[in-house]
Amino acid sequence: MTDKLILNEDRFFDPDPKIRKVARELYEGVKDLPIISPHGHIDPRWFAENKPFPDPAELIVTPDHYVFRMLHSQGIRLESLGIPTVDGSPVEQDRREIWQLFADNFYLFLGTPTGIWLNHEFSQVFGVKEKLNGKSAQRIYEQIQEKLQSPDFLPRALFDRFNIEAISTTDGAADSLEHHETIRKSGWNAKIVPSFRPDGVVNHLHTDIWRQNIKDLGRASGMDIGSYAAYIRALEKRREFFKSRGATSTDHAVLVPYTHELTSGEVNGIFQRALKGRATGDDDAPRFTAHMLMELARMSIEDGLVMQIHPGSYRGHNEMVMKKFGPDKGGDIPIQTEYTFNLHELLNRYGNDPRLTLVIFNLDESTNSRELAPLAGHYPAVKLGPPWWFFDSVEGMTRFRQSVIETAGFYNTVGFNDDTRAFASIPARHDLSRRVDSNFLAGLVTRHVIDLDEAQSLSRALAYDLAKETYRL
Amino acid sequence: MTDKLILNEDRFFDPDPKIRKVARELYEGVKDLPIISPHGHIDPRWFAENKPFPDPAELIVTPDHYVFRMLHSQGIRLESLGIPTVDGSPVEQDRREIWQLFADNFYLFLGTPTGIWLNHEFSQVFGVKEKLNGKSAQRIYEQIQEKLQSPDFLPRALFDRFNIEAISTTDGAADSLEHHETIRKSGWNAKIVPSFRPDGVVNHLHTDIWRQNIKDLGRASGMDIGSYAAYIRALEKRREFFKSRGATSTDHAVLVPYTHELTSGEVNGIFQRALKGRATGDDDAPRFTAHMLMELARMSIEDGLVMQIHPGSYRGHNEMVMKKFGPDKGGDIPIQTEYTFNLHELLNRYGNDPRLTLVIFNLDESTNSRELAPLAGHYPAVKLGPPWWFFDSVEGMTRFRQSVIETAGFYNTVGFNDDTRAFASIPARHDLSRRVDSNFLAGLVTRHVIDLDEAQSLSRALAYDLAKETYRL
Amino acid sequence: MTDKLILNEDRFFDPDPKIRKVARELYEGVKDLPIISPHGHIDPRWFAENKPFPDPAELIVTPDHYVFRMLHSQGIRLESLGIPTVDGSPVEQDRREIWQLFADNFYLFLGTPTGIWLNHEFSQVFGVKEKLNGKSAQRIYEQIQEKLQSPDFLPRALFDRFNIEAISTTDGAADSLEHHETIRKSGWNAKIVPSFRPDGVVNHLHTDIWRQNIKDLGRASGMDIGSYAAYIRALEKRREFFKSRGATSTDHAVLVPYTHELTSGEVNGIFQRALKGRATGDDDAPRFTAHMLMELARMSIEDGLVMQIHPGSYRGHNEMVMKKFGPDKGGDIPIQTEYTFNLHELLNRYGNDPRLTLVIFNLDESTNSRELAPLAGHYPAVKLGPPWWFFDSVEGMTRFRQSVIETAGFYNTVGFNDDTRAFASIPARHDLSRRVDSNFLAGLVTRHVIDLDEAQSLSRALAYDLAKETYRL
Repeated sequence: MTDKLILNEDRFFDPDPKIRKVARELYEGVKDLPIISPHGHIDPRWFAENKPFPDPAELIVTPDHYVFRMLHSQGIRLESLGIPTVDGSPVEQDRREIWQLFADNFYLFLGTPTGIWLNHEFSQVFGVKEKLNGKSAQRIYEQIQEKLQSPDFLPRALFDRFNIEAISTTDGAADSLEHHETIRKSGWNAKIVPSFRPDGVVNHLHTDIWRQNIKDLGRASGMDIGSYAAYIRALEKRREFFKSRGATSTDHAVLVPYTHELTSGEVNGIFQRALKGRATGDDDAPRFTAHMLMELARMSIEDGLVMQIHPGSYRGHNEMVMKKFGPDKGGDIPIQTEYTFNLHELLNRYGNDPRLTLVIFNLDESTNSRELAPLAGHYPAVKLGPPWWFFDSVEGMTRFRQSVIETAGFYNTVGFNDDTRAFASIPARHDLSRRVDSNFLAGLVTRHVIDLDEAQSLSRALAYDLAKETYRL
Repeated sequence: MTDKLILNEDRFFDPDPKIRKVARELYEGVKDLPIISPHGHIDPRWFAENKPFPDPAELIVTPDHYVFRMLHSQGIRLESLGIPTVDGSPVEQDRREIWQLFADNFYLFLGTPTGIWLNHEFSQVFGVKEKLNGKSAQRIYEQIQEKLQSPDFLPRALFDRFNIEAISTTDGAADSLEHHETIRKSGWNAKIVPSFRPDGVVNHLHTDIWRQNIKDLGRASGMDIGSYAAYIRALEKRREFFKSRGATSTDHAVLVPYTHELTSGEVNGIFQRALKGRATGDDDAPRFTAHMLMELARMSIEDGLVMQIHPGSYRGHNEMVMKKFGPDKGGDIPIQTEYTFNLHELLNRYGNDPRLTLVIFNLDESTNSRELAPLAGHYPAVKLGPPWWFFDSVEGMTRFRQSVIETAGFYNTVGFNDDTRAFASIPARHDLSRRVDSNFLAGLVTRHVIDLDEAQSLSRALAYDLAKETYRL
Repeated sequence: MTDKLILNEDRFFDPDPKIRKVARELYEGVKDLPIISPHGHIDPRWFAENKPFPDPAELIVTPDHYVFRMLHSQGIRLESLGIPTVDGSPVEQDRREIWQLFADNFYLFLGTPTGIWLNHEFSQVFGVKEKLNGKSAQRIYEQIQEKLQSPDFLPRALFDRFNIEAISTTDGAADSLEHHETIRKSGWNAKIVPSFRPDGVVNHLHTDIWRQNIKDLGRASGMDIGSYAAYIRALEKRREFFKSRGATSTDHAVLVPYTHELTSGEVNGIFQRALKGRATGDDDAPRFTAHMLMELARMSIEDGLVMQIHPGSYRGHNEMVMKKFGPDKGGDIPIQTEYTFNLHELLNRYGNDPRLTLVIFNLDESTNSRELAPLAGHYPAVKLGPPWWFFDSVEGMTRFRQSVIETAGFYNTVGFNDDTRAFASIPARHDLSRRVDSNFLAGLVTRHVIDLDEAQSLSRALAYDLAKETYRL
């Protein structure tokens, strides 16, 4: 029983000596490339304020639903992990207790990407030299805690050390982007740009939350949104504002990627009903979202923002968790997704237009070879986003490449996104991706599908060029 | 052309020397562990009576739909294989003829798990030393036949020799469990427990068969089932009886895993219509089943029986076979299955309750990474059953691990089930599973995803601990 | 950076030395077997006329939608590739320009089967010794162009050199088969047979095109098709004619493989409405197709033609491409497909009949292990076609074997189809298939699932015997 935490230099490479040799060589060529992170969820405030992260539990456990959903699945209560409640009812406050509980159950992450990322983070970011478990828990807590108080572990210092060339946050339509502005004016030379994610004013227009969001959008855009036309103008203004702050992309989470343009009468009618709180959730709301995907594609063609779609997640599937702890708490479950029919109208209207870049993310692997690769391998606008969420893993990324490259080629994919709220895991995620891609390419080289020099060129494209070029960063 | 039947010691392990070395080491650690068999279909009567199995054809060919469906698919008539007809019309009776036909076509099983299990069974259980084919057929028949007459091959002797620590049969709601009782009283120290499978009184309540089953349930529970409330009480009484006979689990086959609680008025209405033979098959029956899954989960929370669901098989797809030869004759075909929406109501009501263990089996692999692993990786109640039926194979088990572990972890799975009617194949099935899991873990070790000592602990969990603990055996 | 085009002798084999050794040995045993090509789209006119292929661009780029869909996906306009327009509006005519554009972008095919086939074709058919790229483009153009003018590269000479034992074209119900007849009478001893594909008179009966097709069918069969009964008789006559010209199979492309026999009144009503141009596209047309699949199965039982179904492609998804350039231009996208329910009626009526051979092709991989392998592993009539279209690739063919063989066995599959319009790619496609199958079998041998002699027998079956026997060629 070894208790040392050692990251093997050949980790995630096939043990076959020929594949491993080529994988190493490819990996050597990309491991030190700067990080391009065109889609993620870090909080720009951290970098605007540049205050120390408070403690290991708050840095690593409580903000990361990848971590606590697994603990929850084994019957560990979210309260005991210190996850804050919506109504402020009390939860565990003792950070060392939370950390101990996490450490006691860290074996649950064996074989998971979360386990891989955390071990990388412990070892490479914090210099931890022993495995996390119940016995080592408090020693490791202290070691990380000590580091977090030093200047080298302030957010900006870590950002620089992580070699991040450009990163995009995800921001609501009414966001002031004040933190981005603070960063820009601070003289610190880091590229942290926003992306425009108007879900709150596009989806669920039958809810009170939507109406509140419309008010916020009106305020942010300096307009009175009393009509659909005003709403569209407000969105366009906000997109311009985001662009002026460096944004190069938008993002849209939808349950179903259905696209359909309504008539002017239909959409005005729905919008007016919604403003009065009379829109329906099972008819008006999905039709409006379908229509807005058409409008948002049109806007992207006009203003050049790359359009991203993240469909297929049933958000808040666990209503108890949603109600008690809020959104993004691990209770989102994928659903079967259909693209060929749903995207038909959008692609027929805009899919041949070279000005549109539509990056599709996916949680339903059965569509990869059946629908997405053929769509990306034909329509000029369509590009495939990297393996998302449950698929950002050794096996998941490998399956993605195996199922899409033969039909879509490499150049209709867009490199890697880390898509994370866990800032300190960013290097781990990019490293894992670079290793898995190196290994995948090494498999092609050793089976003589491509040559080594071709693999080297592709390796760099996957690790750096494609993300930078696609997202215009 | 070699005709010798030799089981290679490294079978099913990757040929890469590093992987193979680790796989061997892991397999060595688990190969002799006792067998826990928490879900299967052996007949308890065999062990109550302990009479010799009649002959090779009746032991191996005629009861095993894995065997004769393949022969049927190549145009071999079920009559010529001696499969008994429902109406008693004549079928082949000459056991040697049946065996010869089976042997002549044994090459059809090349590359299939059935082929693997049978060769293991021939070699390890019966000491056969040559491959089965048309030429060797009668020699092997005689060899097995001779063994079957000896005391060492009586059902109980084989059970002991197979090193089975605990096995669960599958029994209807009205079953007397007399054979279990006979076994228990016999002084033979073997753990053969029933499990409660009330499909006959839960599904298809629009049929005459259901009404007959309700009468049987009434008789078995000593109640007059004239109302839904009486029906529920009868089920609860039967569950108590099953528990008193050692049962630790229930099992439910449903076409679609839709869950929905009806109002008291609705369910009473449906039940009364059904008693009168006026319930509908396309509306009442599926709604009643959906409601009953809710009720059965509630009962499991109350009485502690582990709840299993086996959804997604279109039973009796081949109506000719169903009508002529009865159910479970190889004509059951899987359908596309949906879990995220269908289980929503059950999981929101009971899924966070630590008292519920819900083991889900699956025939639609596309749901493994998309729905099942995320559900198991979040809800405390949900555990994933092992690869079922068409997936209980080298590639099937490997794909299962590759598609679920990264999201659900190892500890939201439940080890292995042999799920078989073919008693003599039980050691072969567990051995195959242990080999495939050893190989899978060896792949993780050699790619440095986990360490060897972690793999050893997981290996034991998959081969023994998880099944024993989950099923409370 | 190597610019030499070299096909490694071990290409597509696993680098593991044990697997590679066995794969080589298996491949050696099948690589020189004659080609059986029971389903494809070459033009019989080429062989009837035996004129030189005009130039490299017209041979390789403009007829092959695998090639130009990928170029289109990267924003290269089809006009600039010389793809002819429906209305005759001008497109690029300079063959060297087209070739240059293709060569400049040949890197897009890295890792794709199209890239593999083209390199094989360049190297083995045309003796090209350098890689195709922008610099080598014109040299290679000239080299191929020169070859095409020589007698050794006439269609019949290539056919003989490719060692094609039998090939089936795909022909409409009203086709005169004159080119097949010309070939037959020419004294050239090559087996080029038609197959009967009546899609134009079976699908979309609500369109003017269908009505035109019915007139053509009437003319071809010498009948006046004024009734459904006449239509059926006409089809039967045409099938007899096709058989007399050597046909052994039929083929049916359907969006959804729904099968359902209509009553005589229903089908007559639909047919009469259709003749008058009053049938509906969303109701009459799919019901008629479902009914016709039943009728066509009946005809196959009666006349012995092997029945093929190619379901699940949304043809003409990109309407701009469809309208401007016509069908089969890369804008066909697969859809989710369902077989268990859809084929239920057909299989219950005819699936146990040993006279029917129903070969199913598939574009939805999720159905392979879930529905198709179980259906093929049970019903005598059902056989699984080889990986089609987007799956005719290293990974695609490997996944197909991994997902179906364990349930369906090898003998419910039908060997390989090249399914191509690109004549010069035929040897490449069969060679790739033989290599991938050799490698797959070598994996089974080295993991001791099957023995080497069993693998050799299977290898030959997959490369030659199964196609020849199933299609009765």
